[in-house]
Amino acid sequence: MKVIGKNIPRVDALGKVTGRAVYADDIKIPGMLYGKVVRTKYPHARILSVDVSKAKALPGVYAVLTAKDIPGSNRVGVAITKDQPIIADDKVRYMGDAVALIAARDMKTAEKAARLVEVQYEPLPVVVDQEEALSPNAPKIHEKGNLICHHKVRKGNIEHGFKEADIIVERLFKTQMIEHSYIEPESVVAEPLEDGGVRVTGCMQNIYTTRRVLSAVLNLPLHKIECVQTHIGGSFGGKDDSMNIIASRAALLALKTNRPVKITYTREESMIDSYKRHPYKLYYKIGLKKDGSICAMEIKIFANGGAYASMSEFVTWRSVVQATGPYRVPNVSTDIYAAYTNLNYTGAMRGFGSPQIILANETLMDECAQLLGIDPYTFRKKNLFVTGDTTATGQVLPGYVSINDVVDAVVRASDYLNKWRMYKERQGEPAVKKRGIGLACSYRGVSLGAEGADFGSCVVNLQEDGTATLSIGITDMGQGARTAQAQFVSELLGLTLDRIKVLEINTSRSPDSGPTVASRGTLIAGNAIKDACSKIRKTLERVATDFVGASQEFVFEDNMIINPGTKESVPIERVIRECVKRKLPLSEAGFYAAPYTNWHEEEGQGLAYFTYVYGANIAEVEVDTETGKVEVLKVWSAHEVGRAINPEGVKGQIYGGVAMGLGLGLIEEFEFKDAVPQTINFDEYLIPTSMDVPEVVPIIVENPDPVGPFGAKSVGEPANELAAPAILNAIFNATGKRITETPANLEVVLLGKKLKK
Amino acid sequence: MKVIGKNIPRVDALGKVTGRAVYADDIKIPGMLYGKVVRTKYPHARILSVDVSKAKALPGVYAVLTAKDIPGSNRVGVAITKDQPIIADDKVRYMGDAVALIAARDMKTAEKAARLVEVQYEPLPVVVDQEEALSPNAPKIHEKGNLICHHKVRKGNIEHGFKEADIIVERLFKTQMIEHSYIEPESVVAEPLEDGGVRVTGCMQNIYTTRRVLSAVLNLPLHKIECVQTHIGGSFGGKDDSMNIIASRAALLALKTNRPVKITYTREESMIDSYKRHPYKLYYKIGLKKDGSICAMEIKIFANGGAYASMSEFVTWRSVVQATGPYRVPNVSTDIYAAYTNLNYTGAMRGFGSPQIILANETLMDECAQLLGIDPYTFRKKNLFVTGDTTATGQVLPGYVSINDVVDAVVRASDYLNKWRMYKERQGEPAVKKRGIGLACSYRGVSLGAEGADFGSCVVNLQEDGTATLSIGITDMGQGARTAQAQFVSELLGLTLDRIKVLEINTSRSPDSGPTVASRGTLIAGNAIKDACSKIRKTLERVATDFVGASQEFVFEDNMIINPGTKESVPIERVIRECVKRKLPLSEAGFYAAPYTNWHEEEGQGLAYFTYVYGANIAEVEVDTETGKVEVLKVWSAHEVGRAINPEGVKGQIYGGVAMGLGLGLIEEFEFKDAVPQTINFDEYLIPTSMDVPEVVPIIVENPDPVGPFGAKSVGEPANELAAPAILNAIFNATGKRITETPANLEVVLLGKKLKK
Repeated sequence: MKVIGKNIPRVDALGKVTGRAVYADDIKIPGMLYGKVVRTKYPHARILSVDVSKAKALPGVYAVLTAKDIPGSNRVGVAITKDQPIIADDKVRYMGDAVALIAARDMKTAEKAARLVEVQYEPLPVVVDQEEALSPNAPKIHEKGNLICHHKVRKGNIEHGFKEADIIVERLFKTQMIEHSYIEPESVVAEPLEDGGVRVTGCMQNIYTTRRVLSAVLNLPLHKIECVQTHIGGSFGGKDDSMNIIASRAALLALKTNRPVKITYTREESMIDSYKRHPYKLYYKIGLKKDGSICAMEIKIFANGGAYASMSEFVTWRSVVQATGPYRVPNVSTDIYAAYTNLNYTGAMRGFGSPQIILANETLMDECAQLLGIDPYTFRKKNLFVTGDTTATGQVLPGYVSINDVVDAVVRASDYLNKWRMYKERQGEPAVKKRGIGLACSYRGVSLGAEGADFGSCVVNLQEDGTATLSIGITDMGQGARTAQAQFVSELLGLTLDRIKVLEINTSRSPDSGPTVASRGTLIAGNAIKDACSKIRKTLERVATDFVGASQEFVFEDNMIINPGTKESVPIERVIRECVKRKLPLSEAGFYAAPYTNWHEEEGQGLAYFTYVYGANIAEVEVDTETGKVEVLKVWSAHEVGRAINPEGVKGQIYGGVAMGLGLGLIEEFEFKDAVPQTINFDEYLIPTSMDVPEVVPIIVENPDPVGPFGAKSVGEPANELAAPAILNAIFNATGKRITETPANLEVVLLGKKLKK
Repeated sequence: MKVIGKNIPRVDALGKVTGRAVYADDIKIPGMLYGKVVRTKYPHARILSVDVSKAKALPGVYAVLTAKDIPGSNRVGVAITKDQPIIADDKVRYMGDAVALIAARDMKTAEKAARLVEVQYEPLPVVVDQEEALSPNAPKIHEKGNLICHHKVRKGNIEHGFKEADIIVERLFKTQMIEHSYIEPESVVAEPLEDGGVRVTGCMQNIYTTRRVLSAVLNLPLHKIECVQTHIGGSFGGKDDSMNIIASRAALLALKTNRPVKITYTREESMIDSYKRHPYKLYYKIGLKKDGSICAMEIKIFANGGAYASMSEFVTWRSVVQATGPYRVPNVSTDIYAAYTNLNYTGAMRGFGSPQIILANETLMDECAQLLGIDPYTFRKKNLFVTGDTTATGQVLPGYVSINDVVDAVVRASDYLNKWRMYKERQGEPAVKKRGIGLACSYRGVSLGAEGADFGSCVVNLQEDGTATLSIGITDMGQGARTAQAQFVSELLGLTLDRIKVLEINTSRSPDSGPTVASRGTLIAGNAIKDACSKIRKTLERVATDFVGASQEFVFEDNMIINPGTKESVPIERVIRECVKRKLPLSEAGFYAAPYTNWHEEEGQGLAYFTYVYGANIAEVEVDTETGKVEVLKVWSAHEVGRAINPEGVKGQIYGGVAMGLGLGLIEEFEFKDAVPQTINFDEYLIPTSMDVPEVVPIIVENPDPVGPFGAKSVGEPANELAAPAILNAIFNATGKRITETPANLEVVLLGKKLKK
């Protein structure tokens, strides 16, 4: 292969380094107004009245909207439950809720007007803990009660399983709320269109979902709404719901004023408004036999859904499917509950329900090894999936199962066993700074699985000069999707990369490819592109025969079409011009439907995902036992990705994933005081800096997948799941202290738990 | 049918009447510069030097470009010959030629800078007459000489034909130069793109041609150039070359300054710069038998191509093919020559080489009848094509030939024969005001014919709420293309029209459909849409079976899918949602390749067009024999259009076509003095106003074509070809004076020829 598997510079690099790349807030349109959201003063309150008259009277104010100005539905959501208002009507449920929207000639005026909006509230008691929220006496946040959803997995006979056990361990783990920390805050520009419709341009991650929400809120059919995606300054799953909400707000103002309206949140607004990663409380119970095998696991998880349902139904489903990790467990009973609270709502974030369960499960596995008196590697090897094994959901794992190769590779590269033994021996020594090494493993279902219809579409348009454009709905949020997509077109049509342009995503122009989530982008895009390109190739091959003779296997390479039999070749543009002359189509739609999956909600069993990836991380740390400070020295991160389309891109995902995992394990926490966010800028919400990120050794394991394009699966999210548990296990290896709560900040490392603020 | 054949309000009406529709000059981008063209002071001169230093030094000027700043080719053209400079280098050849381009912060500064550009010229003698231009002593305008092209038709034996004739008539006809008079002058905005490419948004008629020209001029591959079409305020064939030139000029300035640049021509600039309709000199010789049949025609035509080749090669080809009109002529010899002169270059204009030859031929046919002593209707009926007849190019006319029906319909509706006889009898009466009635007939090849590869593509995207978008490259210049396209989607998918959106044309987004010329839009678009919709229907039908049972012929109507057998029906959006669930594609590319045509340039024979339309007009006039003023009282305009997709739209074409035909026949003339345009605004260049346009009776004759979508062919250009000759024949009927020169202004009507100015 000429392009696939090669380290290709990013196709968007030039625009980004020259500053030419347009981000949403760069957009200015003459006559454009500035939108401002007026937010609640209470995290939970009944709205008694909203008086906008003073705000409306302010010169330079073009519109002040309240909930009653919404022509369509004021309850939206990206998954099943639609419960989130664009502008709060009856109640406010978290500090991000809007009570009014303002459009003014400039931001200063808009802010002044915001202060003039008068709202009368009846404050209500708040609930912040997800388990408490499910108690009968908890304040009811939504009419239907505080339970968002419940999923389960049932396999074998759990009671029987524990009866067989020689050792039973029960542990509670707690994970924190995490902010996505994308560098670019939410920003959109909405413009009224001549047919009464609206165009919204901005950094929406999933513009088809945005369009769907806009359609409901504005009461407009889909074809009258155009969503256009600018470059995105990071998302990590975070520019889904919140972008739909800000897009709806801007569109409401634009249609009301009949002018373009821009809304860009400040960092503080972004932090207060946007959804986060779910905090989990995870009750794990595991039964072990003396021979080191796992005989049963019983798990109960409570996810803090915050004020609105968002993706909770899907996030928790992934958790429930994967909760027992990449291990053979004959008897499983897992339950997960998501509950409403008055915190920021929680939804999609890189990992999507995996990081929490892996944190719990992999810390627990380490402890199981300890209890069995064997090393963590040997314990895992005893139980890790092998080819043909059946998952907790009753699915026989498809294809070759590579987790043992992945774990062996990372253990070998890091000299884990020797170091683990050495550090274990040094645990009792009197040194202040102690070193440790930790291992964590995972498996992960690729793409949406049984969550929803999993397909992708594209249009490939070959130009008469032998250049091509690709229109596809799979988003580049900075992860390099466009580069991988260009590589696919390049490889399949034999065009050099300078001849390919991946177009910006526009709902009216790019066919729906489903959302860019679940690390599905490469696989879905690649397969849809393959479909379109194969149609174009057939046309070209038919005509190429007249130039270079007939062949069963033409080679498309370096802008030439080659007959490998006769060794004759012809420039592709020559063949294209002949196709034009013969009136043959060179613009083709491509489509890909993912293989069958299913889910039986009642039985808690199913073919959850059509394929899986496997990963293992090892972290080496140094713990200051006097301050509790943990320095991560080095991380080895091994991932089976099917095939690495752009190895440098895969490594980029791994570096970033480890860094974010380090934040999850040690540093980050979005904190509240009585349901009021306390960490609303990066002076208080700390994320790893380049000084915190250690050397990362990426290890790419290839195991080409029959379903993936050129064998590719995924890496975006898996890369983010494993650093944190590896670090926690390393801390144990260094100190002998088990960490069951994140972030493992100074207090947790020293005291084993957080101090209440 | 529910929508096809119905009077449908224009889909772009709302935007246009509310003023929301965006035209090119409405676009403003922050930081945008204004471009200005510095034009020659002489119609023909050698450029000795261009000094831009003073202009460059002016504050507020961002760039001053001359020919040497063009990175690519400085010789462009839309047809075969590429001879037109974007900025003149060695020579200027007409008053529209540019010598420099300026980009400045505002128009005032740009205009000031334009006056500071210092050019030294060596003036050269000019040539303005096309026959003179071909004489050996004429000043050579281009290196290769003044002949642009020569086409011929040869049929039978011309000498033998004339030997058989009882009467031979020879006449010279002259037609004038005509300005398109679109209401919106040329306007574009060019923006540099982040990948080094450029986007040009404006009122280009054929944006794929524009992109091709930009690619050559800028030396950029096609995929780095995006051309976006705004609404177009009229074109009539006039926004082809001149838009490519202005687009290139703006793009050069944008890439040089790295800023958006707008150029909008004033009316004067537009008139001076843009191409016009070719003036023709037509030498017709016809041989008639006493029985009224035509036995031979020998024709020699000289077309004034102006300074550059433009479409001359194609315009004159259509003339040569159709020069003998819709009549059986066994022996034909036609030659047409296009010559360079120092006038405005001439190219595509509504009619495209037809109006001139129909003017000549139909006036001649009238005279033939007179010489034979029979009425013009009877003479024509004797010679008109019937089904199975062979054209002058040796082509057996495809399908049912409707010209006799068309002529009979218009003769009947106008009571032509009685009026003709009455007015003829009154010719000798002493009244000052005399009335007359005139008939003219035509046939016309549909679409490009053997001019080029004739195909069209589109993408139809069905949304989950049962709305649809259509992306297609066929342009709406005000003629209603979008409405017809929406009707096709509506009829084919059974969606009501409010559910369909036809998207703006964008070279990167809409697949190439070839140019919107040659009255091909409806036929090509309709067939491409049919292809895409039939794929979508198949998918929908497969799934609909599960809702309403199996059927061989599902009915798609009023947003429902109906099984006519079981009478069961299901809303289309219900079926679509099920398709989404089953992961089936609902976005499809459509393609259409027109049937085979050919042309043997050496033999002057060929299958020129795959199908033909037929038309006949009758005009009734009143001539003031003292002033020469002609008042057109009423026009009956009958056209066979295959099938009228939107009868109100067809009528619109007929009304406008008659009005423009009246301008051609009586009023309009783009005049020069020593090759310098004299009529550069509408105070001097007169076009018909609503006060000049008479009652028009449109008569639509249907004769569904097997090739056309739902039988549709075309009407846009045919509607413009017949009013002028009908008026000239009516003047004869009123006064007994033959007019052989247009416009038939006061001098011509009174004196039979124009006075020299």
